[in-house]
Amino acid sequence: MQIEVIASVAEARSEDLINKTVLVIDVLRATSNIVTALAHGCLGVVPVETVQQAKQLHKPDDLLGGERFGRKLAGFHLGNSPFEYSSEEIRGKRILMTTSNGTRAVHKSQKAQTLLVSSFLNASAAANAAWKLGKNIAVLCAGTQDAFSLEDGLCAGLLVDKLAHLTGKGAAPEVNDFGLAMRACYLHNQDRLEEELNKSHNGKRLIKMGFAEDVKLCARLDIYDLVPVLKGGMLIPLQSRG
Amino acid sequence: MQIEVIASVAEARSEDLINKTVLVIDVLRATSNIVTALAHGCLGVVPVETVQQAKQLHKPDDLLGGERFGRKLAGFHLGNSPFEYSSEEIRGKRILMTTSNGTRAVHKSQKAQTLLVSSFLNASAAANAAWKLGKNIAVLCAGTQDAFSLEDGLCAGLLVDKLAHLTGKGAAPEVNDFGLAMRACYLHNQDRLEEELNKSHNGKRLIKMGFAEDVKLCARLDIYDLVPVLKGGMLIPLQSRG
Repeated sequence: MQIEVIASVAEARSEDLINKTVLVIDVLRATSNIVTALAHGCLGVVPVETVQQAKQLHKPDDLLGGERFGRKLAGFHLGNSPFEYSSEEIRGKRILMTTSNGTRAVHKSQKAQTLLVSSFLNASAAANAAWKLGKNIAVLCAGTQDAFSLEDGLCAGLLVDKLAHLTGKGAAPEVNDFGLAMRACYLHNQDRLEEELNKSHNGKRLIKMGFAEDVKLCARLDIYDLVPVLKGGMLIPLQSRG
Repeated sequence: MQIEVIASVAEARSEDLINKTVLVIDVLRATSNIVTALAHGCLGVVPVETVQQAKQLHKPDDLLGGERFGRKLAGFHLGNSPFEYSSEEIRGKRILMTTSNGTRAVHKSQKAQTLLVSSFLNASAAANAAWKLGKNIAVLCAGTQDAFSLEDGLCAGLLVDKLAHLTGKGAAPEVNDFGLAMRACYLHNQDRLEEELNKSHNGKRLIKMGFAEDVKLCARLDIYDLVPVLKGGMLIPLQSRG
């Protein structure tokens, strides 16, 4: 099994993702929100690239969610805080979501054999699901405006570490250099994830904007045993508890 | 002080390097060779981008050095092994050097206020020199064909760690997310650098080609107290032992 970690959306080439399982990560906060929403009974999350697309696709029962520059959009029901995505309001609803980086990463990965969504909140479930699919894996860190984001790299490193343990010593996966570096980065920081997220560029920015609790929540590990998978343009829970 | 680590030549933007001290790293093997050559009395190393340029600039007393795909070039005196750059042959000579990634990284950084060259072989001297210059610092990992290389990232992480200790707690440098990740990656692996270099893509490739001793040598820490600096298109030893 080959595992390739990609540092940001800018570096991902859609054609290279064909036939692979892609794990998309945007820890602060899009993929943490998607996992949270599905864990709280949301029908599905449709990632859309622009605000206009979100408004065009919008049907009466849908909710609009997302952000630009970290802020909720005018006329939208939900912003980009995981606390909004665990409310009763979202149960049974379809959410049309557009964010600066996370939804772009999902769109860039649409040619994948299977597109899964990960965050710290569901990392073990995501690694297990990807491993069971038995394909080569690409871990796509969404990053921020085409640059690498520490929080996504830490989560990617955790996934590489989990996948390496799953495959065992006999069939150690072939990991690209960036994946090896992220694994080491995660292992060095595994006992202080929240502290590291607070030091990251996005973490500092969100704390300044008053979202310290969001950062804290997004650093929690494996609180959900659920993996979002893209089916027909919508992210829904993967049914594979077997 | 701001420290930015850049993952590969492809990601470096020349304009962003103006006014900064740039530390160029290509551990396997260009910058290890340049440091070795200057430590053994070479007059200076002129980094050139193409084989043709090297041949055009070549004067009777000069030596031609470099590689493509890890192999010595036809008609060149020297290949790309650090063992060649410590020979008596190079004493007092000017070397025109062209390599696949390292010399490209030097060219991309020519707008820097000061361009320094680092490798594991001279990391402490390089970090000290950059710190003394007092400017913001960019650490450019040459990488391999526009992709990140683990060995360059490890060396970048070491430089970030040394610079953070030099500036002290009171004036902790502002490090970009990629630099924070590389520092953690280095700290996790600091006691087994050689082993990690052997696992890297370039390390494995060089070992397969019969250059295991090169990889071993390039993983040695601080064996030279010398920092190459670019002056008038030539890399010469920086005179700043004060």
